[in-house]
Amino acid sequence: MLESTVAAIRPLDEAAMAAARELQGRLTKPAGSLGALEPLSVRLAGLAGCCPPPLPEPAAVAVFAGDHGVHAQGVTPWPQEVTAQMIGNFLAGGAVVNAFARQAGASVTVVDVGVATPLPLDPAAAEPAAAAGPAVAAGPRLVAANVRAGTRDLSVTAALTRDEARAAVEVGIRVAGELIGGGARILLTGDMGIGNTTPAAALIAAFAGVDPAAATGRGTGVDDETYRRKVGVVRAALDRHSPDPTDPLGVLAALGGLEHAALAGLILGAAARRVPVLLDGVIAVSAALAAAAFAPDAVGAMVAGHRSAEPGATAALRHLGLDPLIDLGLRLGEGTGALLALPVVTGAVRVLHEVATFDSAGVAEK
Amino acid sequence: MLESTVAAIRPLDEAAMAAARELQGRLTKPAGSLGALEPLSVRLAGLAGCCPPPLPEPAAVAVFAGDHGVHAQGVTPWPQEVTAQMIGNFLAGGAVVNAFARQAGASVTVVDVGVATPLPLDPAAAEPAAAAGPAVAAGPRLVAANVRAGTRDLSVTAALTRDEARAAVEVGIRVAGELIGGGARILLTGDMGIGNTTPAAALIAAFAGVDPAAATGRGTGVDDETYRRKVGVVRAALDRHSPDPTDPLGVLAALGGLEHAALAGLILGAAARRVPVLLDGVIAVSAALAAAAFAPDAVGAMVAGHRSAEPGATAALRHLGLDPLIDLGLRLGEGTGALLALPVVTGAVRVLHEVATFDSAGVAEK
Repeated sequence: MLESTVAAIRPLDEAAMAAARELQGRLTKPAGSLGALEPLSVRLAGLAGCCPPPLPEPAAVAVFAGDHGVHAQGVTPWPQEVTAQMIGNFLAGGAVVNAFARQAGASVTVVDVGVATPLPLDPAAAEPAAAAGPAVAAGPRLVAANVRAGTRDLSVTAALTRDEARAAVEVGIRVAGELIGGGARILLTGDMGIGNTTPAAALIAAFAGVDPAAATGRGTGVDDETYRRKVGVVRAALDRHSPDPTDPLGVLAALGGLEHAALAGLILGAAARRVPVLLDGVIAVSAALAAAAFAPDAVGAMVAGHRSAEPGATAALRHLGLDPLIDLGLRLGEGTGALLALPVVTGAVRVLHEVATFDSAGVAEK
Repeated sequence: MLESTVAAIRPLDEAAMAAARELQGRLTKPAGSLGALEPLSVRLAGLAGCCPPPLPEPAAVAVFAGDHGVHAQGVTPWPQEVTAQMIGNFLAGGAVVNAFARQAGASVTVVDVGVATPLPLDPAAAEPAAAAGPAVAAGPRLVAANVRAGTRDLSVTAALTRDEARAAVEVGIRVAGELIGGGARILLTGDMGIGNTTPAAALIAAFAGVDPAAATGRGTGVDDETYRRKVGVVRAALDRHSPDPTDPLGVLAALGGLEHAALAGLILGAAARRVPVLLDGVIAVSAALAAAAFAPDAVGAMVAGHRSAEPGATAALRHLGLDPLIDLGLRLGEGTGALLALPVVTGAVRVLHEVATFDSAGVAEK
């Protein structure tokens, strides 16, 4: 499934992009006056292969959750059980991702791809990964697709086997297919995993070739001593594994995590189906680097939702050549930054659908 | 009306802000992880005087339109008639502000406060300024409140008399009262006026004390020669009038324009009623400087929607101490940048209404 998905990813459609550029020039506004929204609308036309491209509605957030063996190294002050507890919060509708998704009219699908502790709910409530579901459900839903109960500690051994990493990537591809099959016209990345900024920093250092200190941030807000330990753990992991950025499955296996691998799969699945994927923060962009290593043309489907406060996010965005839409110092994850950016993406496309031309509106040009 | 409005503007409520800070600390997210949204939610609690503050729904955009005697100096390549033609486009629903307002669920009220050429519509279609109307109308509506048919040329004489400037400010105050009386819980500033970035630059130079070259930009996209002429016109206006920033009515009279004065009134009217006002681009922030000169506490009601590509906008925001929510190189006006930022404001408030606490959700703290 991974190989066929990668093979299906193609470049943007130049003719559709030319048509979108030409249309932008005839709309009742000064040329270029919508700033970054204009090239975004052109790119989304190229992705869809038509002008105007479809409005990105309905939208679906996929929140991949996993735990991390590196938690044992004391890289975060939060107990590991919070990953499972927050899944309960997501399913009850009480988290920030739920509030923002309700506002944006987006569905929330929580995917247990690697949680280590018991989920605070009836296991029968979870759907198997293959179950087709509507893109816009009545409420948040859980997809049970646990590959293993958390990764191994990347600072002492490979976080995953290659088979486990592949299985996690393919969970993401399957979820993308299911959400798009259910009607979603844009996917938003979300994540939950206590300790997951540590593997994200390692992935960014490996794929973007930046120093561990430049890729590592304070995550949920660690103190100076924990931060120094975290940088040391990332540096030790890179020294131990010498990850090869041209072998993305090998990098994901060495460094993890399961939610990062699944997000890479979600991005590949969206790109193969020519549906845009709106990236959240540092976890998402670390996964996006893996997706781009699998298939460079996948970058055409990526829209950077926001600039996370994590320094590694900026390094990853630079490597991908993406400018974020929102820059408000968020560092929450869950998909919250992507959800805040969604109306900007929708607005960029809506202009091509709804705004009058100088000719049709009887407005003089300069 | 101006004096009583200014007198009604009071500081933010410290108790409500303290309650909002305390609540932010108990919600299921790391402290500070929502970045700029957290202090924004605190400030809006202080404005409303309660925690949580009301959701900013429904939203109303007020687009003030006027023309400019300085058009005769060749500061823009667009014909003056485009101001009136774009009003026709607004009322037909074909402009970018209409597309973004439909997406955001906001009403659009176009106010002719100083258009110089005939409007392309039946005059009977316009409502008098005093008519009460619903905040969320079925479609865009026009309020007829023309103070004069465009300003005089600020580079050769005062753009307005003090009485005309006051009349325009009071149009804005009346529109704020009408929209809020009709149910609006946030006002968004919009503007239309060919040539109106020239008086905006002059206002910013006068109130923020920056050099005309630093306050003046390329507006809708003027060439080098026009840009040099525009800077020269702004410099000549400041030399001629020596505006006193402690006399905001005098500054507005000297430099104009009618839509800038009306926007200052809208902001004052919203602040007096403790309703937030979401600022659009360079015209809005130049008007906001005037509002702050009338009543420094009015800044507490202002939210900077976006950072316009115009350099004067950044100088004005710095003077006001406001950080914009969106920074995407927009330079269209009409209220488009404010509308793109509206979901961020709503999201910031929604968090205080809907997100579970650690205690209620059974999530462990660090």
